[in-house]
Amino acid sequence: MAKEQTAEKGITSRAEDFAAWYNDVVLKAELADYSPVRGCMVIRPRGYRIWELMQRALDDLFKETGHENAYFPLFIPQSFLAREAEHVEGFSPQLAVVTHGGGKELEEPLVVRPTSETIIYAMLSKWIQSYRDLPVLLNQWANVVRWEMRTRLFLRTTEFLWQEGHTAHATAEEAEAEARTILGVYRRFMEEWMAMPVLTGQKTDAEKFAGAVRTYSCEALMQDNRALQAGTSHFLGQNFARAFGVQFQTAQGDMDYVWSTSWGVSTRLIGGLVMTHGDDVGLVCPPRLAPLQVVVVPIWKSDTDSGSVLEAARRVEDALRAGGIRVNVDDRESMTPGAKYYYWELRGVPVRLEVGPRDVAQGQVVLARRTGGKVPVPVASVLESVKAALEEIQAELLRAARERREANSLRHVNRDQLTEYMEAGGGFAYGGFCGSPECEVEIKERTKATIRVLPDPEFRSDPPPASCAWCGKKAVTEAVWARAY
Amino acid sequence: MAKEQTAEKGITSRAEDFAAWYNDVVLKAELADYSPVRGCMVIRPRGYRIWELMQRALDDLFKETGHENAYFPLFIPQSFLAREAEHVEGFSPQLAVVTHGGGKELEEPLVVRPTSETIIYAMLSKWIQSYRDLPVLLNQWANVVRWEMRTRLFLRTTEFLWQEGHTAHATAEEAEAEARTILGVYRRFMEEWMAMPVLTGQKTDAEKFAGAVRTYSCEALMQDNRALQAGTSHFLGQNFARAFGVQFQTAQGDMDYVWSTSWGVSTRLIGGLVMTHGDDVGLVCPPRLAPLQVVVVPIWKSDTDSGSVLEAARRVEDALRAGGIRVNVDDRESMTPGAKYYYWELRGVPVRLEVGPRDVAQGQVVLARRTGGKVPVPVASVLESVKAALEEIQAELLRAARERREANSLRHVNRDQLTEYMEAGGGFAYGGFCGSPECEVEIKERTKATIRVLPDPEFRSDPPPASCAWCGKKAVTEAVWARAY
Repeated sequence: MAKEQTAEKGITSRAEDFAAWYNDVVLKAELADYSPVRGCMVIRPRGYRIWELMQRALDDLFKETGHENAYFPLFIPQSFLAREAEHVEGFSPQLAVVTHGGGKELEEPLVVRPTSETIIYAMLSKWIQSYRDLPVLLNQWANVVRWEMRTRLFLRTTEFLWQEGHTAHATAEEAEAEARTILGVYRRFMEEWMAMPVLTGQKTDAEKFAGAVRTYSCEALMQDNRALQAGTSHFLGQNFARAFGVQFQTAQGDMDYVWSTSWGVSTRLIGGLVMTHGDDVGLVCPPRLAPLQVVVVPIWKSDTDSGSVLEAARRVEDALRAGGIRVNVDDRESMTPGAKYYYWELRGVPVRLEVGPRDVAQGQVVLARRTGGKVPVPVASVLESVKAALEEIQAELLRAARERREANSLRHVNRDQLTEYMEAGGGFAYGGFCGSPECEVEIKERTKATIRVLPDPEFRSDPPPASCAWCGKKAVTEAVWARAY
Repeated sequence: MAKEQTAEKGITSRAEDFAAWYNDVVLKAELADYSPVRGCMVIRPRGYRIWELMQRALDDLFKETGHENAYFPLFIPQSFLAREAEHVEGFSPQLAVVTHGGGKELEEPLVVRPTSETIIYAMLSKWIQSYRDLPVLLNQWANVVRWEMRTRLFLRTTEFLWQEGHTAHATAEEAEAEARTILGVYRRFMEEWMAMPVLTGQKTDAEKFAGAVRTYSCEALMQDNRALQAGTSHFLGQNFARAFGVQFQTAQGDMDYVWSTSWGVSTRLIGGLVMTHGDDVGLVCPPRLAPLQVVVVPIWKSDTDSGSVLEAARRVEDALRAGGIRVNVDDRESMTPGAKYYYWELRGVPVRLEVGPRDVAQGQVVLARRTGGKVPVPVASVLESVKAALEEIQAELLRAARERREANSLRHVNRDQLTEYMEAGGGFAYGGFCGSPECEVEIKERTKATIRVLPDPEFRSDPPPASCAWCGKKAVTEAVWARAY
C-alpha cells in the first residue's frame, strides 16, 4: 500500500531502486534537470538556492580563517598541464579542448579548466618574491569541466560548480596545517549545516589527487551504504611550485620553493544532502540549508472564513520573517490543502504551519514537522516554537544520520567478512591494511570496494587491527573500505 | 612637480595618458592582472571583493523584484545558436569552440556560451505549459566568453563574469514592463552604490542586442569623456520563444508563444568605477563598494608609545567593526606611516584614521578622507563620525560625477558642433536624429561617435531638437552621441 501510494505520486521507493529514487527526488523536487548538452545539468532555482546557502556558509568560514576570493581564467594553455607529470596524467582523459576561437584555429589549444592549480601557480610565480608575501590564501568559486562517461545529476557531471582553495606557504609545516584546518572546516560545515556526518582521514597513494603529496578527505555514507567523497584537501608539497618556478626569498636570505595546498567541495554536496536525509516522500532539507524553512498553509471551507484565515496566515508569516525565518504563505486557490502538504513535503520544507478557522478562533496554528509529528502552538509564541522546531530537526537529522552510519559500519573485518559485507550491500568496513598496492587492487577487483580513508585517530578502532584484512600480514595502518560514488 | 611625484610613484597621470593611467591603477591597486591566456584576465582579491559587494547588492535587488537564481550549462550545441538568425549572426565571430572532449572529437562542436538565451529557451520549452507557469523570472551569475581582438582589463576581456537575467511572460506588456523595471534597478545600483550617474534610453536598431526587438541601456561618461555602456536590458518579443518553441496555454485556452526579456551587467562595471572616480594617486572607491572602508594607521616614534597607540587603534577598530564598518588596523612594522598613507590611497580606501601618542592623550583620532580633508574626531563618537564621513563621501562622489557629466554634455548640436566636439575629446552630444541608418553610419565614420541612446524623457532637451544634427531633415527623435568603450 505504501509502495502504491508513492508510486502514484511518482517517486520510486528507496527499497525498490535507490538510484531511481534519487533521480525522482532531484527531478520532482525541481532541484535540477537534464540539459540537451551531454553530461551537463541545469541547476533549477530550488537546487541553486541550496547551493547559495552552502556558498554563504562556507565562504564565511573561509573568510574567518583568513582566505580571500579571486578569479582565474576558465581556459588553460594545454602546455601548462603537462608541467606537472602526475597532474597531466590524471586529468588528460577528462579534458574538454577549445581548438577554435574567433573563427580561427588556435595556435595552441586551450583546455577548459578541470581544476586551476596550473594557471594559479603561473600567476603566483609573478606575485611572490619574499617570505613577506606569504602565506597566500586564495579561494575561487567557479565552474570546472571534466569529461565523464557516466554522469549522475549533481554527483558526477561534466561541468560542475565548486570552490577551489589554493594556498602557498613558507614551510611544509604551515602548508600541512592549512590542509588539516580546511579538512576541519569542511567537516564542520558538513555536520553543522548539512547534518551529514563524515569520516575524515588520508587517502592512499592510489586514491590521492593527481599531483598531491597527500590527500585528506571527508567521506559520508549514503542511505544505500555507498560512500560519497564529499570534500578533499591536498598537501601539494613543492610539486606545483617547482613546476611553475614559484620561489621566494626566505627570512634568512635563501631562495626556496613555496609549499602549497589545494582543496575543494562542489555541487556534488547537494546530491549528498539528498541521499543522506531524503525519504520515500521526497527531499528532506536540513533547516539551515532549506531555501524555505517554513510554509504556512491557510485552510478554509467557506468564503466567509477565507479572509480571516488568510489574514492570520500573513501575520504569522510577517512575525516569522521579521525573526529571520525563510517563510512563505502558500495562498494558491487552485490547490487543496492536502495537495499543498504533499507539494511541500516532496520539496523538503522542514516545517509546515496549518491555519484553519478553528485555529484562528483559538489563537493557534498547527506545527507539522517534515520528519514527523504535529502539535498546536500559540500564535503569540510562534517564532519561538518555530525556531525550537528548526533547531531540533537540524540536530535530529545529524543524530539519525550518525546512528545509521554506525549501524552500517563493521570493524576488524577479515577477508571473508569484507567480501560478504560488500556483497550484502556494504557500508564502512574497518580493517587492518598491510600497505601493499597489490592488496588494494585485489580488494577493489573482488569486492568493488576502495579504501575511502586511512582514518584519523578519533575514528580508529580500539584495539587497532593487527593484521591486514586481505593478506593477513602485519597491518601498518587501519583502513576503511566502501563501495563509492 | 606633481607629475614627477606621480611618475615616481609609478602611476601615469590622467592628463598625460588616460589609458595608461587606467592600466596603472588597475594593476598597482591590485584589482586585476594580465594572465598567460590571451585576452583573459585574473581578478585579484582586491578587485574580486568589489565584485562580491556588487553582486550582493544587485542580487538583493533582483530577489526583491521576484527573481530567482539558477545555473545553465557552460556549453551550448553549435546548432542552437543558429536557430535565431540575428543572434547567430551577431555572435558567430566571437565564439570559442570546443571540438574535443575526453580525448575524442565531438560529433557536434560545443560553443562556450557567449550569452545563454539559446540554452535557456531550450529548457523553458520543457518547463512552461500554461499561463499558470508564468512569469518565469530567472537570473544566472556566470562566466561567458566572447573572443575579442583588442582587450582591456575589466572593460573588454575574452572571458568575463556577469549576471544574465532571463524572463518569460504571458504578454508583451508584461515583458516590456520587466525590461524597464530592470533598467531602473541597474540605474539605481549604478547611482546609489557605484556613485556613477547614468543616462538611460533605447538603443537604435544598429546598436541593439543580436536577437532583441528593443534594447535599453545605461550609459555612463568616463573622465576621458568616452561613454561606457554599463548595463543593458532587452525586450526580446517572441523571437527566442519561436526559435525554441516555447508555447503556453493562455487563460482563454489558446496557445501562444511567451514574451521575454534578457538583461546583464558584468565585471566591466569595475572598470567604470575606476574611470569614474579615480585620480592621479590611484583608485577612489565609493564607500558602499569599498572592500575596506576604513584603515587605521597607528603612529609612534618610540617603543614606549607603541603599546598604548596600538591598543587605542585596536579599540577604534573593534568599535567600528561592531558598528558594521569594514575596517583594519595597518600594524605593519616595516613601513612608515607615510608609506602606509600612500599604500591605502592608491588602493582607494575612503577613510583613514591616524592615531598618534598625542591623539591617545587627547582621546581623539584624525580622520582623513581619500577625497581630501583631515579633521580630529573624538574617540567616544568615532563610529558616528566615520558613518557620517562615509555617507558624505558616497554622496559627494555621485554629485561630482554628475557635475562632470553635465559639464561635458552639449545640447542641440549641429553637424559642425558634433564634429568639433568629438575631435576636441568629446562628451555626450545631444541632437536631433532623422532616424536614417545612413546618417547614423556616416556620423560614426566621420566622428567615431555612435548613438549611445535615444534618451528617456527625463534626459531629453527642452525644447526638443527640430532637425537632424547631421542631414538637417526633420528629426524624429533626439539622440545622444559619444565615442564609447
